[in-house]
Amino acid sequence: MRGGNWVGVVGRRLRKQTSYFSVHSTSSTSTEYPNILGPYLPDVWTPTNQSHRPQSSAIFSNGNSARIIDGKPIAKDIKFRIAGEIQRMKAAIGKSPGLAVVLVGQRRDSKPYINIKLRACDEVGIATMVEELPESCTESELLDVVSRFNEDPSVHGIIVQLPLPQHLDEEKIMTVVSPEKDVDGFHPLNMGNLALRGRQPFFIPCAPKGCIELLLRFGVQISGKRSVVIGRSKIVGLPTALLLQRHHATVSTVHSFTKNPEQITSQADVIVSDVGIPNLVRGNWLKPGSVVIDMGTNLVKDTSSRHGFRVTGDVCYEEAIKVVSAITPVPGGVGPVTISMLLSNTLDSAKRAFRFT
Amino acid sequence: MRGGNWVGVVGRRLRKQTSYFSVHSTSSTSTEYPNILGPYLPDVWTPTNQSHRPQSSAIFSNGNSARIIDGKPIAKDIKFRIAGEIQRMKAAIGKSPGLAVVLVGQRRDSKPYINIKLRACDEVGIATMVEELPESCTESELLDVVSRFNEDPSVHGIIVQLPLPQHLDEEKIMTVVSPEKDVDGFHPLNMGNLALRGRQPFFIPCAPKGCIELLLRFGVQISGKRSVVIGRSKIVGLPTALLLQRHHATVSTVHSFTKNPEQITSQADVIVSDVGIPNLVRGNWLKPGSVVIDMGTNLVKDTSSRHGFRVTGDVCYEEAIKVVSAITPVPGGVGPVTISMLLSNTLDSAKRAFRFT
Repeated sequence: MRGGNWVGVVGRRLRKQTSYFSVHSTSSTSTEYPNILGPYLPDVWTPTNQSHRPQSSAIFSNGNSARIIDGKPIAKDIKFRIAGEIQRMKAAIGKSPGLAVVLVGQRRDSKPYINIKLRACDEVGIATMVEELPESCTESELLDVVSRFNEDPSVHGIIVQLPLPQHLDEEKIMTVVSPEKDVDGFHPLNMGNLALRGRQPFFIPCAPKGCIELLLRFGVQISGKRSVVIGRSKIVGLPTALLLQRHHATVSTVHSFTKNPEQITSQADVIVSDVGIPNLVRGNWLKPGSVVIDMGTNLVKDTSSRHGFRVTGDVCYEEAIKVVSAITPVPGGVGPVTISMLLSNTLDSAKRAFRFT
Repeated sequence: MRGGNWVGVVGRRLRKQTSYFSVHSTSSTSTEYPNILGPYLPDVWTPTNQSHRPQSSAIFSNGNSARIIDGKPIAKDIKFRIAGEIQRMKAAIGKSPGLAVVLVGQRRDSKPYINIKLRACDEVGIATMVEELPESCTESELLDVVSRFNEDPSVHGIIVQLPLPQHLDEEKIMTVVSPEKDVDGFHPLNMGNLALRGRQPFFIPCAPKGCIELLLRFGVQISGKRSVVIGRSKIVGLPTALLLQRHHATVSTVHSFTKNPEQITSQADVIVSDVGIPNLVRGNWLKPGSVVIDMGTNLVKDTSSRHGFRVTGDVCYEEAIKVVSAITPVPGGVGPVTISMLLSNTLDSAKRAFRFT
């Protein structure tokens, strides 16, 4: 599966990550293999089929159409409850939650995500602060901004919008965000407490939390089930795998080094994908009757659309709905629930800070 | 596989863990499912066959005998190099590494492990301090001891021997150990940095590190290979799975909730087991030509032995050697290398503290 020169959504994310090589190369000691932690290699997927249109003959069908896991009403319900809680907080103690967003540079593709988050905060009564820094800002300037938000008692959640420009050490900056305000759940302390069963992180990353929320709300049994996570990003794939395991699924993680990933995915009862390649997961990758959570968010050209593109997931939806028992659409599946989980994490943080129950 | 009433090595460990229920029950908020992190359920395995003697007719054979992955000469080699490094450190700066061991109560089964560690430290020139506390000590007394070692500049590694008595909060105490002296690698910050590719924990847990060391030294290809970890303990199973994934294996974790685990293990090129049940893994669980790392350490009755028992792993060795291409024996496989990894972690910590390269 490797070695392709596919570039796109994932490609951009990877260029940043290759800089971790330098972190790695300093770690060797004379008493151990320098590569005991494994060589850092970026995940480069090569799509099996560039076509965005399904080959319907390639799939097997269970004869039924799948249940659509619609995230919008669930997100609405969660937001409604959050808004109620914030009103109750304001009435009782005169306080409300605050979210700070740090934005470096003018990445055109970051803006819509930020705007969605800000609008959602506004809807439920979370105050927002946006700090915009120029593309050329120094690491020290960025760290100062983060530290200021760490100290600010009106801020309960801090988001540093990723990816950052190449010259900034993303890992270092994520570590400086206070674990108690890390509403994205990316701090290594929170990730460790997510990995270690019996422990409690301050925050669970929003997209994986949204994934589990959907599975629970739709009554999908997780415990004892075979589940496969396609992709191992620190934002989605890794924490989703850890969370599924906490729910006692038997979890396999498939990534760009996996040979014949479809052999593994086709054994799974629950499949979660977050790779960033449209139509990577074809109908014949899926077990009949399985449940699919498509976490991919890919922009593909579409001349028939007003914007010239449309949003699609990693799963070939038209093929999948003929095979699986339930599937999230893209857009409108995990996405809206992910946003509501950010609001939920911010509210939880404020409650903790104010000791409000 | 669940529901049995098997008690033994694993049973004891589990009794302690059930106390995490209380940590969990405080975590719900009104805006989310209380069980988004999953219900905390202990792993209770039921052995498929209590017999310690193999049924040779049950296995399939590749006709060859397996290569034995002997950990003893490798451990000796690592210890030799560590001793040399410590001599060099003493000669250059007049300092040597120090390891502190905290022992609560008089657990008969903890003593041999502690003694092996202390003797190994002595052999290579690591100073050791043992603090013994009575079974009835309070949490505050134990935390004071740990904090004192955290502050002590002559201490570079701290081990709190597990399991602790029921009345002590193991998770809390492990979090108080400074991440920079956590030579066991169990602190959530270190575990998070192990999980997150591209990051560097201060320490990797010793047994998983030993497992990878053996695979690397024996030239076993990990990248792109199917690997299965049987058991998901925070000490062995979880960090081993995370480490194998950093080496780009396709990792599946099998645990007590997994139905028909042999269907998954029999697809794996590399199998690691740490469950605590003798002979759980039979010949027909294994793929011909695969590599087996047996991390189990189980005491079974043996009237023919001088001590009345013998040590055995999780894998039915007599069956496995007819199927696999390489396997670690128990004892004498991962065990000795695990001890040498503790020494290596302690040396690394001292080098970091003294800025000695």
